[in-house]
Amino acid sequence: MRIVVLAGGIGGARFLRGLRAAVPDAEVTVIGNTGDDIHLFGLKVCPDLDTVMYTLGGGINEEQGWGRSEETFHLKEELAAYGVGPEWFGLGDRDFATHIVRTQMLGAGYPLSAVTEALCDRWRPGVRLLPMSDDRVETHVAVELDGERKAVHFQEYWVRLRASVPAEAVVPVGAEQAKPAPGVLEAIAEADVILFPPSNPVVSVGTILAVPGIREAIAEAGVPVVGLSPIVGDAPVRGMADKVLAAVGVESSAAAVAEHYGSGLLDGWLVDTVDEGAVGRVEEAGIRCRAVPLMMTDLEAAAQMAREALALAEEVRVA
Amino acid sequence: MRIVVLAGGIGGARFLRGLRAAVPDAEVTVIGNTGDDIHLFGLKVCPDLDTVMYTLGGGINEEQGWGRSEETFHLKEELAAYGVGPEWFGLGDRDFATHIVRTQMLGAGYPLSAVTEALCDRWRPGVRLLPMSDDRVETHVAVELDGERKAVHFQEYWVRLRASVPAEAVVPVGAEQAKPAPGVLEAIAEADVILFPPSNPVVSVGTILAVPGIREAIAEAGVPVVGLSPIVGDAPVRGMADKVLAAVGVESSAAAVAEHYGSGLLDGWLVDTVDEGAVGRVEEAGIRCRAVPLMMTDLEAAAQMAREALALAEEVRVA
Repeated sequence: MRIVVLAGGIGGARFLRGLRAAVPDAEVTVIGNTGDDIHLFGLKVCPDLDTVMYTLGGGINEEQGWGRSEETFHLKEELAAYGVGPEWFGLGDRDFATHIVRTQMLGAGYPLSAVTEALCDRWRPGVRLLPMSDDRVETHVAVELDGERKAVHFQEYWVRLRASVPAEAVVPVGAEQAKPAPGVLEAIAEADVILFPPSNPVVSVGTILAVPGIREAIAEAGVPVVGLSPIVGDAPVRGMADKVLAAVGVESSAAAVAEHYGSGLLDGWLVDTVDEGAVGRVEEAGIRCRAVPLMMTDLEAAAQMAREALALAEEVRVA
Repeated sequence: MRIVVLAGGIGGARFLRGLRAAVPDAEVTVIGNTGDDIHLFGLKVCPDLDTVMYTLGGGINEEQGWGRSEETFHLKEELAAYGVGPEWFGLGDRDFATHIVRTQMLGAGYPLSAVTEALCDRWRPGVRLLPMSDDRVETHVAVELDGERKAVHFQEYWVRLRASVPAEAVVPVGAEQAKPAPGVLEAIAEADVILFPPSNPVVSVGTILAVPGIREAIAEAGVPVVGLSPIVGDAPVRGMADKVLAAVGVESSAAAVAEHYGSGLLDGWLVDTVDEGAVGRVEEAGIRCRAVPLMMTDLEAAAQMAREALALAEEVRVA
């Protein structure tokens, strides 16, 4: 079975770990969000790709869900001592190595997809990890700060401001000119199932879909497309998805996110059991819906979610 | 009193710490060797400048004489896990910050002298630290390796090969086209005394003197120029100076190094008490010479050496 998964960071990575446990023999291709990539200290940092790579490769800091295990922060302390920031972005000493290797390879002319493959040679995540694009896309968030309307990098909004001010707009700068990375459209065309894990529908999955060609390829693939709600009981399971949903005019509910994707894209949708009441509304929108436990409390819970998603995909396929 | 010191790494740095203790009110300008600079992992590393900066700024690893105190090596471990080398160069997590800041500033267009000044804003070494040149100079060593004659970077010769093969030639590549950094010639012209600490006469002081204009400025400054022998009892006090002295046809002795500099450059020379027998030979070469303890066992010993050097300079001045 060939499965394509559109993944953001922590939620996507944990779901993927469950998926690998559920169907170890499946060929899984992950299309990773690169809209939250950022240049820091002259280095190219790809938080979502790294979270997937570290999580599946066994190097993740399990507690926080991002960054490396057994991490130290001496380099960052020293940068701060030099007065060099930003201090709000937590790059650890071990993590820095990834960004140094990536930056050197990019500087030598390799595209991000080739760099990602080389990094994965070490981590062996058990999936094929592709950046959504080799072109630079950078998600900016329009906010009002100190009485002034300005656009800040997504990481600044998310990490520094902790999404504490309303997002007025979310713009994946560069997406319109970006091309899908080599292998992305092919993987979608050859997929048996396409899954949207419980990642952020705006700044993770939404950014991937904003790269011209990807949304169309998924809609035309002719295979079941099944998503899992990142919203449980009207609140995001992790992170602050509600903040960016408001910016695109979508209410923070499991049903509204399904409607946001729409039946043109999505065939099936899983909501949490606490949102059982939303099933009818989703199905009215033309999307087959089931209510199952959606809290990834451990690997087995994530694996069970993956099984439910694949079961729903089979239901859709035979329907 | 204005003092100019031509410094390499460990020996120069420790002597400078003694000099500062001996004459805390003196204005000390250090002209630092940059011939051992190396690009590693896309970063510009300046080992000698950093050793001086860390030593005088209180951040040095006292035991090894280079690198940072309280250092960890997680980043380097990770680079090795990615298969990215060289592994033989010991960059620690804290040390990396210096190279990242330097590389970013150089990338932004600042010359090395401005970058060094910015880094010293943090370390406050109590001296004015100038690179010998803002232009790239890279000391290469000609060796026979595996039956083949080849040139290796000085750091590869020194750190990886531990000077275990004979150096057939030492070439400061780029020196002929290099210009002294801003302030270097002015500091020499305004100096009351010029000192050569017990640094390597070939790859440290020799490289600085290879930048066109510096040797001439020192010879024409009209002030006492006093050096301290890095060779004690026919062996280098630290490091492997004997290996590179052979490459320039100079025997490994306190007297031979003085003759190598020559009376056209050097007015006074300190040898260790064990080399008292060399005093006559050095004075025959037209260089005033004294035998005093030259082992920098602690700060006070280094301070006493500085006092002896300044005393010899006064002797030369009134002579």
